[in-house]
Order: sequence, then C-alpha cells, then structure tokens
Amino acid sequence: MDRKPRPKVFIVGGGFAGLAAAKALARAPVEATLIDRRNHHVFQPLLYQVATASLSPADISSPIRSVLRGQANCQVVMGEVQGVDVSNRRLIFDGGYAEYDYLILAAGATHSYFGHDDWAEVAPGLKSIEDATEMRRRILLAFESAEYEGSDEARRAALTFGIVGAGPTGVELAGAIKEIAGQTLPRDYKHIDTRTTRVILLEGADRVLPPFPPELSARAQRDLERMGVEVRLNSIVTNITPKGIYVGDEFIPVRNVFWAAGVRANPLGTSLGVPLDRAGRVIVRPDLTIPGHSEVFIAGDMAAAKSADTGAFVPGVAQGGIQMGRYAGRVIAAETSGRSSPELRKPFVYHDKGSMAVIGKAKAVAQIGRFTTGGFLAWLLWGGVHIAFLIGFRNRVQVLLSWFWNWLLNARDARLITGAAQIDIQAPRPTGFVRVPNAAVPQGPSSPPQV
Amino acid sequence: MDRKPRPKVFIVGGGFAGLAAAKALARAPVEATLIDRRNHHVFQPLLYQVATASLSPADISSPIRSVLRGQANCQVVMGEVQGVDVSNRRLIFDGGYAEYDYLILAAGATHSYFGHDDWAEVAPGLKSIEDATEMRRRILLAFESAEYEGSDEARRAALTFGIVGAGPTGVELAGAIKEIAGQTLPRDYKHIDTRTTRVILLEGADRVLPPFPPELSARAQRDLERMGVEVRLNSIVTNITPKGIYVGDEFIPVRNVFWAAGVRANPLGTSLGVPLDRAGRVIVRPDLTIPGHSEVFIAGDMAAAKSADTGAFVPGVAQGGIQMGRYAGRVIAAETSGRSSPELRKPFVYHDKGSMAVIGKAKAVAQIGRFTTGGFLAWLLWGGVHIAFLIGFRNRVQVLLSWFWNWLLNARDARLITGAAQIDIQAPRPTGFVRVPNAAVPQGPSSPPQV
Repeated sequence: MDRKPRPKVFIVGGGFAGLAAAKALARAPVEATLIDRRNHHVFQPLLYQVATASLSPADISSPIRSVLRGQANCQVVMGEVQGVDVSNRRLIFDGGYAEYDYLILAAGATHSYFGHDDWAEVAPGLKSIEDATEMRRRILLAFESAEYEGSDEARRAALTFGIVGAGPTGVELAGAIKEIAGQTLPRDYKHIDTRTTRVILLEGADRVLPPFPPELSARAQRDLERMGVEVRLNSIVTNITPKGIYVGDEFIPVRNVFWAAGVRANPLGTSLGVPLDRAGRVIVRPDLTIPGHSEVFIAGDMAAAKSADTGAFVPGVAQGGIQMGRYAGRVIAAETSGRSSPELRKPFVYHDKGSMAVIGKAKAVAQIGRFTTGGFLAWLLWGGVHIAFLIGFRNRVQVLLSWFWNWLLNARDARLITGAAQIDIQAPRPTGFVRVPNAAVPQGPSSPPQV
Repeated sequence: MDRKPRPKVFIVGGGFAGLAAAKALARAPVEATLIDRRNHHVFQPLLYQVATASLSPADISSPIRSVLRGQANCQVVMGEVQGVDVSNRRLIFDGGYAEYDYLILAAGATHSYFGHDDWAEVAPGLKSIEDATEMRRRILLAFESAEYEGSDEARRAALTFGIVGAGPTGVELAGAIKEIAGQTLPRDYKHIDTRTTRVILLEGADRVLPPFPPELSARAQRDLERMGVEVRLNSIVTNITPKGIYVGDEFIPVRNVFWAAGVRANPLGTSLGVPLDRAGRVIVRPDLTIPGHSEVFIAGDMAAAKSADTGAFVPGVAQGGIQMGRYAGRVIAAETSGRSSPELRKPFVYHDKGSMAVIGKAKAVAQIGRFTTGGFLAWLLWGGVHIAFLIGFRNRVQVLLSWFWNWLLNARDARLITGAAQIDIQAPRPTGFVRVPNAAVPQGPSSPPQV
C-alpha cells in the first residue's frame, strides 16, 4: 500500500508546553518528534522542594519517553537544537538538520541576571534538577560551615540567606529555608542555634507576589514575617558579591544568595528572524505563530503571547504553557486531518485557572477567579492542585508520602550534600579541634598520608 | 562543680562501622566526635539500585547528624582527615589537628584497579552516591545513544555492557541491567529493541559469588544465564579501553564497562606506621588495635581482622563493619567507665549472620549458617533483611514502596540523566534527521543561534 508521507511535526522542549502539544497530536495523522536536551520532564513548580531537601529529584521528574510511550506517532529524541532555518523549514542540530512541516518551539526560559551574568556564580537560580541539587548543597553547607566558624560575625554571615525576587519561587524558597532552620535542623547542631538563621527576601516592587491580588500579597507578607522572614520591598539589587548584596548604597552581609528575580527566554528564538521582547520571548500572532510562517508555533515561556479576550500577556506559569502547547497541537491536528474546525486558528485565549503560592506549613495564598483565600484552605488547595498535575501515579504517591512526613515530623529527609565540598574547620569549634593557622601540619611517623 | 575532663574519642567514618561505634558509646562518659567527608551515611548494599534507577539517592542515605541527633556525648563533624600522628595522639586535618584519647578509624574502602588506575575513567566503580548517579547516567545514556547510532555494529556495541567482577555487586548490577533492558525499557524506544542488550559478567575465579557456598554460586549462575546474562569465568581482565575489554588476547567489544572487582582500603592507614596487607588494610591485633597503640582501633573495611574463633578474615560486608565498630565502642565504653568486664579486650569474634545476593525479580541466593536457599524465598529474605537494616523508618517505607512498584509494573522511575550529556544523532535514525558529516551546518536567516 503506497501512502502519502505524513507531515512531520517537530516539538522542541519537553516541558509543560511541549508535552501538551505532543499529547494533543496523539490521534493526528502526523509523524511527530519531541526533542529535549534532557531525558526527563521536570515539574518545575515543585523544584524548590528539591532545593530545600523535601523531595528527591526523581519524585518530580518523569522520563519523557515513558510519558509518550503509548503514542505511536511520536518519537522522542534527546538532543540539543542549535537553531531554526525557517526559510528552509529546517531544525539545525550539531552535525546535521531535520526538515519539518510544522514546528512547535517550546524550549522554555532560563534565569536572567539583567545583564549581570557574573552574579550567576554567587546567586544561582532554580530551573533544572541540577540547579536544585546545587541549591540544596549550598543551603546545607551553610549550616555545616556555620558550625565550624570561629567568630560570631562569620557565623552570623554563614547563617544569613538572601533571596532576590519575591515571586512564587522566591516566597516559597524563603519560607522553606526558614522552616528548615527553625524546625528541621535545631537538634542536629551542637554549636549553633539554627533558629537564629536570617532569611532576607528582596523585592524590587512594592509588594511580594506582584502578579497576585494585593490582599494576597499582604497576607503572604504577614505570614512570611510571622515566620521570621525579613521582607524588603522596593529594593533594587545593584550588586552581588560573595560577601553580600548591595541595594543602592546599602550593603547587606549575606553569605548565601539565591536568585528568583527574572527569566529570559531560550535563545533559540533569536534564530527565527522575528521581533523578540525584552525578555527574549518571541512576539507571536494571535494563533501563536510567527509572522510569515503559519507553520511555526511558539508555546510556553518562549512566547510573548496575548490572550485574545483580555489582551493581557499570558503569564509564564505551567497553565500558560499547557494551554499554548495544547492549542498548537490541536491546530496542527485539525489541519493535517483536513478537518474544518471552528477552532482552527481561532485566536488563542488563555483561561486563567488561578494562582497559588505556598509560604509554609498550613500557610499559602490562592486566587481562583474572584475568590481569594489564605492559610490552611489555600495550603490544601495548593497541595491538591500540584498533586493532580504531577505526572505519574507513583510520583503522586511519593510526593504525598513525603509531604505527610514533613508535616508530621518536620522532617526533610533528602538532606544530601553531593559533589565536592570544602569545609574549613575553625578552632575552637567544634570541641577538641586545634587550628594551626599558616603553619605546617604535623606529620605522622610513617609515609606521608595519601588521601 | 569541677569535673575531670572526659576522654576524647574520635571516630573517622560514618559508615556501618563508624555509626555502630558511636552508638556503642552512647552512654559512655566520653566526648565523642564522628568525622566524615560526607554529611550522610550511605546504605551501600542498595547502592546498585540507585545506579539502576530503582531508588533515589535519598532513599538509601541518612544525614549522619540526624542519626546521632539524640546522642548528647557525640558531636558530628563534616571534614576530611589527612592523617594520624599516633605518637602524639593527633588526628591531622587541613590547617590543624585534634587530640584524641581513643581513635576508631573506620574510613572504609574504595575501588582498586590493581595498579591500572587509568581504567577508572572507562570502568567506574560503585562506592558513593556520586558513583551511583554517574553509573545510572552511563547506563541510561547507553540506550539513548544506541537509538541514534547509524550502523548495526555501533548499535550493538552501545547495547553491550561489561561488568568486571562477579561478587554480590557485580551479580546484582548484571541482573538489574538485564531487567531494565528486557522489561522496563522495551516500549520506550522506537528504533532499537532494548531486549537485545548484552550483559557480560566477567569473573577471574572459577565461579560467580566466590565467597558463597558452591551450590549457591551454581544456582546464581543458572539464574543469571536464564535471564540472558553471559557469564565468563576464569577471565582475568588485562586491559580496558573505551572500545572494549581484553581478556588475555581476546578482545570483547563493550561500550559500557563497570568495575565491581576489587577494593582497596582508605589510604589513611598508611599514616599509622604499621603493616598493611596487599589491599591496604591495617593488620590489627585480636582486639582490633594496632601494635603498640591499644587506644587506636581499626574497624570495617580498613581492617584486616581475623575472627578469634575461626581464624578467618572478617569479610568486607556490612555485618563485619557493624560488629567491629560495636566491639571497639564497647571496649572504650567499658574502659572509660572503669568497669571491669569479661568482654574487655577479649579477642574479637565475628558472628557470620549469612550472606545474600539478589539476581533479579524473585531470584536471589541466601546462606544462613548451614541453611542455603535460592529463588523466591531467598529473595524475600534478602528484601526483609535489607529493609530491617536500613536506617530510618521513612527510608524503609520509601524503599518498600519503590520495590512494590518495580515488582508490579517493572517500573524504574528514577531514570534521570543528570549532568552534561552529549548525544550524537546519527542519520538515518531517528526518522527525519539528516546528517551532514564534516560539513558546515546551514544557518538560519537571522543572527546566529546562541544556545
């Protein structure tokens, strides 16, 4: 039987948008390919819980191949796309290319340091599993090094955390670090009181959670401050060094800084030859395609897309990605099936399902339509929604179990420091150690130790 | 109240031996310090399950501070010991020292390549969490790269695994890799049949699991071969390259090699100035101390210790470490309490509680005293014993849950490839990719892509 070749659809990125696009194509007469640099999808809204030792990386990750295993018309490729040649409809990769009939670019975003890329080393952000385990390492090492510091001043600096940006990630990190220090760790350390840990949350706007309704921002700030988080609004960070943060002329001594302030779209958009916004996002048409190329869709954090009903930009949240990806997939599915659908290329409309952010145990804020709430109810809602959107039954059970444990015992059991770690033990702490500064280390009687 | 200072006991290493020693000192009138390079204890018998994507690192790890949290007389220090100055009773660390009254060295062992340290890069071993995630990365990347290989030969090489050493770790790895390839992954890949994966288990001795009773070795070999593992006995590896393994003159093309053949004691023993055995282990006296220093105990994999009843060397297994550590801790507890105990310095006797190794689902071998068994019963025994010895109730629940899942669905959900990974996509696989060997990559119409 001689069949016409099926249209080739390439999807770049296995995040919320890319997976939603692939799934929307499940029954379409296409040959789909999903490419991602990673072999796994990451449930980014819970990444901060990996960074704060509540969850394991695998709990919030799913192998992309497994997710799309049942979809016969979609192959999965682990690889890195170098650019797009839109005039020849080619996706360029190292050493070759692939020709597409339709393209869905959904490669997400990364941190943006607003032109200060040198801050990245001192103030890492949180986008990937590697970012999360690195952040976890730094948080846990902060307490370790405080235990061994010789002076009160150095100890205080080691026990001070600064978080730049009070969006959901910043708020969630601040609350979680305060909880670790105040509830999980106090009995683990004999020479420091981890409850004295300072967490400073810096935000450039005049309230925390700027995209939320003002009453929820106020509620979140009150909850954070009750937990002991120091909230500093209208604070534009002007420099970050290993010693601390500058806000204008003021210097705040902070040893541990985390970045939750800005994102920049994946630079793949630059190869399209179309206008980008200041965050590097591709300015798309109402059907999420680029000018002159109705076969190239942009979805998720790479797209500067407006919702056709409100004219407002679609926010960079999971729901935005899912809805954009699904839209693009459905349009392609309809066109390749030859179906004429009233939905076809109808301007994209974003359905805002609400926003939520968790602050701590039994503390969260939530907004669903005009309904807003805080505290325990919001916390339950937050948990329910996140469990529901996690991929995979097993991940759901594991995460629920971990949450139950944390809730019951204030335990955070994924407290692993992995990778190289250099701890400097300062006398007279811990007990029994003697420091010999700038002096030769006494040698054992036999051959020199080899470690 | 003026009190005499309590004797200082330093324990180096937070493995089975070190933790057992610390716990044995719980009620002793001492000031104990446990030092480890890591902040976590690793349950090494299950490390291979992290390497084969069944368990997450945190499932088999416990923060040492938490384990010893309730023990008021023991501080925990994360740091690296550089050597021992036994004549001055000093433990040397970078930039200083610590004086001890008693010392328990229990810093474990690492891989030994029998003088071929250049094999380490090609054939990594399995001792730490980092080793396990690196091995997991290599195993998963092998299937990924096979999916994109252009030639049958290269594909076959990518799907061939060689494991050097058929002790418990080698046997367990071989079985687990075969199960991943045969049961977990087949539906995930569209261009390869992962069931064709070859796993070659190489052993220098004339049977697998050499320390086990011969009938169990035979049983294990039969089970392995039924699963499709190629067992090669009397095979001394003479070279390992990125292309394969040499056994004498024979070359076996293997892309993925793992090392489970030999261990070498931590080199800290060299600073003691006492005789070591060929594996670098300290030859100890019947009370586990070194000649001339009854205050220096060696426990666990660092010790070449004989059991006083049989005269046989204590094997390098968890039970050996636990019993030696406990012995050392009890002797010190008794001496510092001024108690005269019949146990005091009585020659150490190792109580062999049996040996077990798992081969695959419902397949294991176990020996307890004179009782030997294989198959389902041994598998249940193995699982029960390992759960019982895991530290922490939560880890037990998590591991049980993961095992149940694996058993029910052949799922291995920790299939995360982390760290840098370079995949070379070879045309014509996967579908739609075109390779341009040694040619300039076509460029998009606009600015060059920056990825």
